[in-house]
Amino acid sequence: MSESRTEIGTLGEFGLIDRINDHNQIKNESTIKGIGDDAAVIDCSDHYQLVSTDFLVEGIHFDLSYVPLKHLGYKAIAVNVSDIAAMNGVATQVTVSIAVSNRMSVEAIDELYNGVQLACENYKVDLIGGDTTSSLSGLIISVTAIGKVDKDKIAYRSTANVGDVLCLSGDLGGAYMGLQILEREKEVFMSDQKMQPQLEDHDYVIHRQLKPEARMDFIHELAEKGVVPTAMIDVSDGLASEVLHLCKESKVGCKIFDEQIPIENATKLSGMEINLDATTAAMNGGEDYELLLTLTQDDFEKVRKELDILPIGIISEEKEGAQFISPSGKSHKILAQGWKHF
Amino acid sequence: MSESRTEIGTLGEFGLIDRINDHNQIKNESTIKGIGDDAAVIDCSDHYQLVSTDFLVEGIHFDLSYVPLKHLGYKAIAVNVSDIAAMNGVATQVTVSIAVSNRMSVEAIDELYNGVQLACENYKVDLIGGDTTSSLSGLIISVTAIGKVDKDKIAYRSTANVGDVLCLSGDLGGAYMGLQILEREKEVFMSDQKMQPQLEDHDYVIHRQLKPEARMDFIHELAEKGVVPTAMIDVSDGLASEVLHLCKESKVGCKIFDEQIPIENATKLSGMEINLDATTAAMNGGEDYELLLTLTQDDFEKVRKELDILPIGIISEEKEGAQFISPSGKSHKILAQGWKHF
Repeated sequence: MSESRTEIGTLGEFGLIDRINDHNQIKNESTIKGIGDDAAVIDCSDHYQLVSTDFLVEGIHFDLSYVPLKHLGYKAIAVNVSDIAAMNGVATQVTVSIAVSNRMSVEAIDELYNGVQLACENYKVDLIGGDTTSSLSGLIISVTAIGKVDKDKIAYRSTANVGDVLCLSGDLGGAYMGLQILEREKEVFMSDQKMQPQLEDHDYVIHRQLKPEARMDFIHELAEKGVVPTAMIDVSDGLASEVLHLCKESKVGCKIFDEQIPIENATKLSGMEINLDATTAAMNGGEDYELLLTLTQDDFEKVRKELDILPIGIISEEKEGAQFISPSGKSHKILAQGWKHF
Repeated sequence: MSESRTEIGTLGEFGLIDRINDHNQIKNESTIKGIGDDAAVIDCSDHYQLVSTDFLVEGIHFDLSYVPLKHLGYKAIAVNVSDIAAMNGVATQVTVSIAVSNRMSVEAIDELYNGVQLACENYKVDLIGGDTTSSLSGLIISVTAIGKVDKDKIAYRSTANVGDVLCLSGDLGGAYMGLQILEREKEVFMSDQKMQPQLEDHDYVIHRQLKPEARMDFIHELAEKGVVPTAMIDVSDGLASEVLHLCKESKVGCKIFDEQIPIENATKLSGMEINLDATTAAMNGGEDYELLLTLTQDDFEKVRKELDILPIGIISEEKEGAQFISPSGKSHKILAQGWKHF
């Protein structure tokens, strides 16, 4: 091993992924796309197969003091199905591996899998395998989702074109706001266990945090209209981070208009109570699992009246960079914050 | 959540898997085989695709005080490729997810991925994705391997027939013996850090523990001879456990002859030194990653002289059960020990 020591924090998650991928060589013809999109793409004769995988680690991604196990199981599937949706695909199979401490009862594991099964039913996905082992610390869940997409309908991150309309499938910021509310109530409860959590006014954002859905309904509607996005990515890390991925991979810039960013009133109200700006939550929060997509202007005109689709900006030349346009018309450069795990 | 509480230990790993699978419904036509074999099987028009996944958890599956990270990375790929081999398939892609504590340096992660890349080169597999996140405790690795097999060449666990010859691709017990040697030397070192580990006489078994190989060479040789096993499983949990899986799934019994179980002299010698019976290590140890397969008698005759294949017994009627025949001709019922994680 080398003598030098570099801290992971200096690279961050995406730096680490780039470093791993730098030495990576593709050897099989069937590998169409490896690391670098929402899902990998494998040639399966008459269609493409999609593969996506995610880790959920207790204490990093979830806190069992306020996340019910059934919701956690559901979410573990939903976030992976969302990665398949982001390629314009349909998830067909999942594997679910768990590492659990022996503090956890069989009944608790049943609850987790009840959520997994419910998500599998809703998304019409088959649970086909996994690994079960013990853990010395908390619960760890690893899900791999497999999906399919017609070869002429796949949507990468890297294929947006100048002039395309940048759209969202739904509103942002709610999931992050919900997390902050849950964290606040946990702190109150920890300091005085007689206090009951005050969650009634925050149903919407808590629902967005605990029960995210993969937007398969949106994917099916697009397909019905015969529209294929020129590019797509799911919003797991906040709009700023995702739009920068899309622009970087597509070698384009963009203009996003502040007042066009869809944020529910409920999210704004929760934000006021905890003094957190809702636009900041939308840009730099995460876990909304809406789809960020680009459409040709013709396609956008075709679907805008029939589909619940939300235009937020326009794709521009790469040299213009990714810009955030305030209501007064002032332009700011979009900077990524996203989730920092390290 | 239910009021009752059942400890995981009362179910064990396989009991837990059965419980999860009990409620499992397959909804997609493309799912040919879900939970219950070495890999899941998905229909991909002109061939089957295979999917297998494994967790490696620090403190449960490996101990970084004596497992070099490069070897660990290699092994993480090898054990998953072995699952694909056990279906008579060829691995084509892998995803590798890691959760690491921030105590780990970027250089240490490089070492781990050097091992991953080396295995990917040796097995001609593409690294196509993964997730990287932080962990509050130790290192956790989750690998999913994807492979392919011709539809008429797949080998399940469940298709062995009475009269088939039960064979192994290589010798057993070494990996478990190596683990015991490494554990012993670690204990010595922990009690007196001036002591140097005494490993010279145990090269073979330590190699079997630290550098297991998926037997793709064996799979390719079988294919060259035009022979398809009637059933196959890889030996990850000890021969007793694997043979019981094969018999249960195939609804057959078997006779395994003690003196036919292939054990290297080096394994026996290491066993003598630490007072561990080599046959016990072969039957109830694990991690040898050899292939246990059944062949028709005709096929066995066809390959026995040209292939390094080791007959250990014969498949019998289900009612006879799985029997272990001692050199004196005495029959014992085979009981599973396998790995107990819980």
